[in-house]
Amino acid sequence: MTDQGAVDLAEKFALFSEPFKPKLVAKVNDYAVKLARIVGEFVWHTHDDTDELFLVIEGTLTIQLRDRDVVLGPGQLFVVPRGVEHCPKADGEVKVVMIEPEGTVNTGSAGGSLTSTVEPI
Amino acid sequence: MTDQGAVDLAEKFALFSEPFKPKLVAKVNDYAVKLARIVGEFVWHTHDDTDELFLVIEGTLTIQLRDRDVVLGPGQLFVVPRGVEHCPKADGEVKVVMIEPEGTVNTGSAGGSLTSTVEPI
Repeated sequence: MTDQGAVDLAEKFALFSEPFKPKLVAKVNDYAVKLARIVGEFVWHTHDDTDELFLVIEGTLTIQLRDRDVVLGPGQLFVVPRGVEHCPKADGEVKVVMIEPEGTVNTGSAGGSLTSTVEPI
Repeated sequence: MTDQGAVDLAEKFALFSEPFKPKLVAKVNDYAVKLARIVGEFVWHTHDDTDELFLVIEGTLTIQLRDRDVVLGPGQLFVVPRGVEHCPKADGEVKVVMIEPEGTVNTGSAGGSLTSTVEPI
């Protein structure tokens, strides 16, 4: 990722298989563009300081909010507002692009075993 | 866009046809997620203060740089670094998602007749 060349999302997704381990594929200033695979349910959490964008590339993602579910298919995106508790859940496996400030922790305020570093890929 | 609901990119693209008129579909903090259609060649310009992400949804986009061309198809993205002169060019028509700080002007430092406001859609 050193030269910030063109990024082919499918090629990048083919380089990893583990769910809930976001990979850094590009940066826009201090915002990170990450790819993640989601299988099953993540963990309820909140990002107190930032919004978080999910763009589904493959599969069906349900972003559970406390008052409703947002269901996204390929080519659909949703921005979870800062401070809003959410829990992503995949029906099967989902490939998703996430955009948020660099350093945003995937489990937000919840922590726990699914907390992951973000490796460049 | 008032409630920042889910955004279907194809539905949003169907709402406008004019090239070089970016539309705002979501915000991530103070970053704008815009959709644009590109037909033919834009204008050489630079954004001195920000990087600019292009993600191609449909068509083939060539981002001309002074030292090389970056050619993107669907599912491919590129981040033009701040201060790097560039000129997008479409082979036919291209549908693209752009992400950059709110208020970034499409023609950057070049100005001219293709300078456009960004309307929400």
